[in-house]
Amino acid sequence: MSYFPQVEKIQFEGKATKNRFAFRHYKADEIVLGKPMKEHLRFAVAYWHTMTQDGSDPFGMPTNERTWIGATEMGTAKNRVEAFFEILEKLGVEYFCFHDIDVAPAGNSIEEFMNNLDEITDLIKVKMDQTGIKLLWNTANMFSHPRFNNGAGSTNDPEVFAYAAAQVKKGLDISKKLGGANYVFWGGREGYETLLNTDMKFEQDNIARLFKMAIAYGEKIGHKPQFLIEPKPKEPSKHQYDFDAATTMAFIKNYGLEGDFKLNLEANHATLAGHTFEHELRVAREFGALGSIDANQGDMLLGWDTDEFPTNVMDVTLAMYEILQNGGIAPGGVNFDAKVRRSSFAMEDLLLAHIAGMDTFARGLKVAAKLIEDKFIENLLAERYGKWSGTDIGKSILAGKEDLESLSDYAYKNGDDIKLESSHIEYVKSVLNDYLF
Amino acid sequence: MSYFPQVEKIQFEGKATKNRFAFRHYKADEIVLGKPMKEHLRFAVAYWHTMTQDGSDPFGMPTNERTWIGATEMGTAKNRVEAFFEILEKLGVEYFCFHDIDVAPAGNSIEEFMNNLDEITDLIKVKMDQTGIKLLWNTANMFSHPRFNNGAGSTNDPEVFAYAAAQVKKGLDISKKLGGANYVFWGGREGYETLLNTDMKFEQDNIARLFKMAIAYGEKIGHKPQFLIEPKPKEPSKHQYDFDAATTMAFIKNYGLEGDFKLNLEANHATLAGHTFEHELRVAREFGALGSIDANQGDMLLGWDTDEFPTNVMDVTLAMYEILQNGGIAPGGVNFDAKVRRSSFAMEDLLLAHIAGMDTFARGLKVAAKLIEDKFIENLLAERYGKWSGTDIGKSILAGKEDLESLSDYAYKNGDDIKLESSHIEYVKSVLNDYLF
Amino acid sequence: MSYFPQVEKIQFEGKATKNRFAFRHYKADEIVLGKPMKEHLRFAVAYWHTMTQDGSDPFGMPTNERTWIGATEMGTAKNRVEAFFEILEKLGVEYFCFHDIDVAPAGNSIEEFMNNLDEITDLIKVKMDQTGIKLLWNTANMFSHPRFNNGAGSTNDPEVFAYAAAQVKKGLDISKKLGGANYVFWGGREGYETLLNTDMKFEQDNIARLFKMAIAYGEKIGHKPQFLIEPKPKEPSKHQYDFDAATTMAFIKNYGLEGDFKLNLEANHATLAGHTFEHELRVAREFGALGSIDANQGDMLLGWDTDEFPTNVMDVTLAMYEILQNGGIAPGGVNFDAKVRRSSFAMEDLLLAHIAGMDTFARGLKVAAKLIEDKFIENLLAERYGKWSGTDIGKSILAGKEDLESLSDYAYKNGDDIKLESSHIEYVKSVLNDYLF
Amino acid sequence: MSYFPQVEKIQFEGKATKNRFAFRHYKADEIVLGKPMKEHLRFAVAYWHTMTQDGSDPFGMPTNERTWIGATEMGTAKNRVEAFFEILEKLGVEYFCFHDIDVAPAGNSIEEFMNNLDEITDLIKVKMDQTGIKLLWNTANMFSHPRFNNGAGSTNDPEVFAYAAAQVKKGLDISKKLGGANYVFWGGREGYETLLNTDMKFEQDNIARLFKMAIAYGEKIGHKPQFLIEPKPKEPSKHQYDFDAATTMAFIKNYGLEGDFKLNLEANHATLAGHTFEHELRVAREFGALGSIDANQGDMLLGWDTDEFPTNVMDVTLAMYEILQNGGIAPGGVNFDAKVRRSSFAMEDLLLAHIAGMDTFARGLKVAAKLIEDKFIENLLAERYGKWSGTDIGKSILAGKEDLESLSDYAYKNGDDIKLESSHIEYVKSVLNDYLF
Repeated sequence: MSYFPQVEKIQFEGKATKNRFAFRHYKADEIVLGKPMKEHLRFAVAYWHTMTQDGSDPFGMPTNERTWIGATEMGTAKNRVEAFFEILEKLGVEYFCFHDIDVAPAGNSIEEFMNNLDEITDLIKVKMDQTGIKLLWNTANMFSHPRFNNGAGSTNDPEVFAYAAAQVKKGLDISKKLGGANYVFWGGREGYETLLNTDMKFEQDNIARLFKMAIAYGEKIGHKPQFLIEPKPKEPSKHQYDFDAATTMAFIKNYGLEGDFKLNLEANHATLAGHTFEHELRVAREFGALGSIDANQGDMLLGWDTDEFPTNVMDVTLAMYEILQNGGIAPGGVNFDAKVRRSSFAMEDLLLAHIAGMDTFARGLKVAAKLIEDKFIENLLAERYGKWSGTDIGKSILAGKEDLESLSDYAYKNGDDIKLESSHIEYVKSVLNDYLF
Repeated sequence: MSYFPQVEKIQFEGKATKNRFAFRHYKADEIVLGKPMKEHLRFAVAYWHTMTQDGSDPFGMPTNERTWIGATEMGTAKNRVEAFFEILEKLGVEYFCFHDIDVAPAGNSIEEFMNNLDEITDLIKVKMDQTGIKLLWNTANMFSHPRFNNGAGSTNDPEVFAYAAAQVKKGLDISKKLGGANYVFWGGREGYETLLNTDMKFEQDNIARLFKMAIAYGEKIGHKPQFLIEPKPKEPSKHQYDFDAATTMAFIKNYGLEGDFKLNLEANHATLAGHTFEHELRVAREFGALGSIDANQGDMLLGWDTDEFPTNVMDVTLAMYEILQNGGIAPGGVNFDAKVRRSSFAMEDLLLAHIAGMDTFARGLKVAAKLIEDKFIENLLAERYGKWSGTDIGKSILAGKEDLESLSDYAYKNGDDIKLESSHIEYVKSVLNDYLF
Repeated sequence: MSYFPQVEKIQFEGKATKNRFAFRHYKADEIVLGKPMKEHLRFAVAYWHTMTQDGSDPFGMPTNERTWIGATEMGTAKNRVEAFFEILEKLGVEYFCFHDIDVAPAGNSIEEFMNNLDEITDLIKVKMDQTGIKLLWNTANMFSHPRFNNGAGSTNDPEVFAYAAAQVKKGLDISKKLGGANYVFWGGREGYETLLNTDMKFEQDNIARLFKMAIAYGEKIGHKPQFLIEPKPKEPSKHQYDFDAATTMAFIKNYGLEGDFKLNLEANHATLAGHTFEHELRVAREFGALGSIDANQGDMLLGWDTDEFPTNVMDVTLAMYEILQNGGIAPGGVNFDAKVRRSSFAMEDLLLAHIAGMDTFARGLKVAAKLIEDKFIENLLAERYGKWSGTDIGKSILAGKEDLESLSDYAYKNGDDIKLESSHIEYVKSVLNDYLF
Repeated sequence: MSYFPQVEKIQFEGKATKNRFAFRHYKADEIVLGKPMKEHLRFAVAYWHTMTQDGSDPFGMPTNERTWIGATEMGTAKNRVEAFFEILEKLGVEYFCFHDIDVAPAGNSIEEFMNNLDEITDLIKVKMDQTGIKLLWNTANMFSHPRFNNGAGSTNDPEVFAYAAAQVKKGLDISKKLGGANYVFWGGREGYETLLNTDMKFEQDNIARLFKMAIAYGEKIGHKPQFLIEPKPKEPSKHQYDFDAATTMAFIKNYGLEGDFKLNLEANHATLAGHTFEHELRVAREFGALGSIDANQGDMLLGWDTDEFPTNVMDVTLAMYEILQNGGIAPGGVNFDAKVRRSSFAMEDLLLAHIAGMDTFARGLKVAAKLIEDKFIENLLAERYGKWSGTDIGKSILAGKEDLESLSDYAYKNGDDIKLESSHIEYVKSVLNDYLF
């Protein structure tokens, strides 16, 4: 039985207007910079947006047509597993990601929830073994239930903290069972509504406490996924503690978590924080903390997380450039934390939207690879910073041989005629366009 | 001779509509929480906005009427010193702040610039000795001259780096001469136009290098002001490295500068970064890094630094609450990094605007003090977080006795009926209004 | 039976910290500028936020505790009517507003929906007759159901247009039955996701067509409420046609709807469009189109509609100033289109939040009235524009006696020495603070 | 003598990395949709950004290296004319735009200013006659001088109004002399700092008064350029009256200026107002008021007008699509209201940046033309709105034969099973990418 009878398997050599179910740019095994595309990109499908998102918004009811709804919650959950792996296989995607409540119904008690999780993740494991598809990361949803109104790690109620700890423990147990490569924390409610009633330090201490418990438990059970924190500045909280990459690095350093934690960066979260995506990737890369990415795009004129499928080739090119400069994204991957628009409510849109996103990343990868092969940016930098390695004063400063007094003397002698070079940045962008188009 | 003949000295007991040159709320010696207002507030006037700002904007020529313009640049510079101290005295302000180029003409060479600086700061010293007025902080302007087009510490040209070092050295020499309490770095050009031609790590390494040279030089000359970094997210740069308080703390920690550097936080920079001012103050406070503040306000509907004089009493109250909780702002202060609007171009507006700002801070101080005396926020927090200290599980977690397994067991036993309390936040805000109005 | 047993009736002379269920500033019958407060303010409670909002958000499940949920949908709907009028009476509010689906379940067919509406609005009518409470406005929800995915008036499907027309007809029938003073159109889905697939002119023609049908039907049934359009720039749509007051006036003028349509303006919608609320009120006022207001406040650092209860006294003062200058807001009113925060989930918060909002408006009204009594702004304007009425050239221009040539001649003669006066705007804001606090 | 000795004439068939002074996409005479590119694009160079912009910003001194600075202001002004026409010829651009003060020094009196203007525009006329280059539009700078602090048409001082009128008169005289096709009003100071001291209606009445004087004077001298208003939401003013296209249309309609005024739309002004550029173009187009465009791009993460040269091919494609659907932009054109970045300070950057912008528009034109040839969007619309022309109910509504009652009857009969079609918008965007790249 198939949920997508209209398509056998996504074809590679499609013509744009003839076959909608075809990649026009992504070819899993095409070699780029010495590796197959699929190894560069390590695509993952997100369970939540693909299987449980319903098309509703704060002003509207669900619109999505989904054929996997069954007679019971567990029946639906099992159908979803079938449909999900069909999607992964049709798309040729080898990784996936999920929150606990995406895959299993919460039931009426913590026992029931955990039992449901065991049952469904057993089923997922069977599918994984059959298909070779792997778990990029899982996580616990510690933000949707009313008990997390005031946060999970940062909650004002220790009972809630304990509940969260139970979810994290189960998440790590599942991660071990399924061989998860990473484990993510996104703190949607780890923040505040107002500072008037918030003890920020107490709350952050407790978040760090929960993270350290997770590290310790991973060590105990002999399973150590790469832990990742996913920054976001706001929404649903008025302010979230993990505002952006740099803020999260300050937190990681403050609590001594550098050895165990890296970042999972999302394009739309970057722009909500006032940054480009490539900026966030660069910050993480320079801290040695680029773990994985959530691939999507926002609308620069809207102030909320639209989680659109990525179709902007320029933006993706600049992101892939950072990833290639990072030596790749593994053990992380490119997870489509993206949802179909409310008006794209048909089943087939799930495939079409992923194809659009994967093709966009394939294009971006190829352009970024060409930029690297041509040393386009490398040459720009070499020219721009050349005086540091090409002059005595430059070398001496970098060698640590100068101080304020020696440099002041130098400046007096050197005089006021310092000649900068034009950046010719408009020309640079024009040439970059030639790479893109 | 007076630049403000219309007013002898600002009066304290003014009536709103009768005497414009009167404080209605600020009384320097009134005791609040056991200290005179002036010791809480440590007001400073900023040389740049008060003495050299001309009312121009990107679309308009200067508008400000200033009677201190002389026949020569040095003549003007000397007149400014006279006028500046007259303003400080008339306002009863005891601190001031300046950049090097605010006070002395750049001349035609570095020697001339430095000589001008020596001459003018000697004059300033005389005035300080006469009046008892003190230097809150000085800094070097390393962003206006074309040589700093690509940054100062982060420049791509080591000759520019040397020039900047010479300015910092002179800045510290002046700081020593004038007994400066703090020394500020604001990196207006320490950032990038585009990542395409930027080696961010190299640039940040060099900024840290310059800062360490400053620390070393301060130690060498036996003068150690509190070093401060002033965060700003953007403008003039497309992106500035010291984006906000948390980002700057990540930088400080990354380069091991915690012992010597704190933050100088500005209200308008906070909102440009997407934060409330009180948020930035809280972040700094919890890192033990709240050094000083630049008092102003922005326009929440405009995307640039408007640097308005603060008149929003609610915002200032929340800022003063953080400062009081910090145990005060000394050795920092409340520096009016604020400029009169382009339409407030008369000489007298300089006094009127400062009075408006000082009265606003006086109000804010008094309300914040009342909140503390009444334990308004303290009680909110005690009630909200009470379960952490009031339950066995709360105490056990805080004591470090729990782990994921023990908490998971607890959660199973505890069950799903966790009752949160309403925040009643609308009621809280309504009562807060009663404190304000 | 009472849904709020803890409070008999909101008391007027409450003390802030003693009795939470008390007004501290609003006194319905206190005379301000010759009229009782309640006649100035004409408060209304919104059915949707108060009765059906559940505390959910895009990342979270419902949190609100509501004791009126019954065994059946119609049972709940009837309980809500009881509870709603209890709230109105306890608060002493005389008006209310609702969408059709707020009050009655949609059922399984249009017939069932309309029958449910008849039954519930009959019940509402009984309560209105018993209490004297009046309908400020009603409207049809033409944005939540999936059929309105692409708009209602602007839909691409004429069947949907017909469905919307049926709702509007019923809305007007109900308005007649209940004596509604106004009828509102908010076009949450009247906009676009992307221009790529949108015929904007066709869609706007059809919206106007629907509005004209509404006018005609009102005339036919002999019931003519004031029709109102409520502008909002975006959310849920990527772009909404009624972006702001001025845009909506362009639409109204373009389709000749001036005689029948005015504006219903919301504070949070104003700021999402990049305007202050007072700006939107001023625009509407000067077009003679200020119809009614939705009272709430947004968070200036968040990019979505937070619909908070208004507690900012300054903002409300400036809004009330515009309303008083407009000669009042009747037949419109001050409708609390505001919802309790997700963390204010208790039943009692519904009362506390409304009290906070009403007290804020009472304060704002009193300050605005004082500004008018003192001619504070009137005098500022008289002085600022005085040269227009006080000089020959000013009078001549206003009298229409000048043209480019005569004015050019005047300018040559008049020369270049034109003296503007300083606005002293910092001083003005400082004095304004004295009015507020 | 040449200001750009390094390049003879921009070549068309350049190779990206070989010759920087070459177009890679723009070919003036290449036929697109039946017309040469140059007739579609009607490029213009802006005098202000190209000749007088100096690279300064609110935090920095001038950086631009310009070789035309002479010994006197008039000498410089004359050199600029030479250099400007050299740029136009080298680029093969046939149109230009200027403000009065861009070309001629203000001198010390209105007489001197006007005389300078006469002298320089005579010189410009000679160059125009020699080269065949034409004036797209001119305008009067009524925002930079301090006299315009409170506006020009909206000023509170009738003497300033008269001065503005003299400038407009002279602007129209020059327009006649030079055969200007359009005349632009940009109201940079026609707005307010605060509503507290602003009589918005009085000010807008006066702006309209000035516009009507301009229409009358044009008629009198027998020269009628297309009058254009250029919307911008803010900067330098806190709020500008011509906020966006729709707001400006409300103004135009309110004062009966439809017959004489159209819009000059700028990309960066659109995004500052919260709109895409194509949105603004569509609004103007549907009002029949698309006059001309200012071609540039902003930075979506910055809140001010960056006026960058356009290099985003996607955005320009969507803009050119609107222009082609408008039947072209004549008698308007594509004016590069764009400035080189502060770091692109070399003379040659003026050429390189324009080449980048022109190539971007050439690409956008070609893609937009292909979209039209393939009926890509036309087909999307035909399918999406097909039920309006393809069903009885659709036709009947459009024919005006339905009312609320008949549609309500229809809706009851039609029932609740209305099937919308998915927009497949992700797929559409993916195919659009194939057109672009």
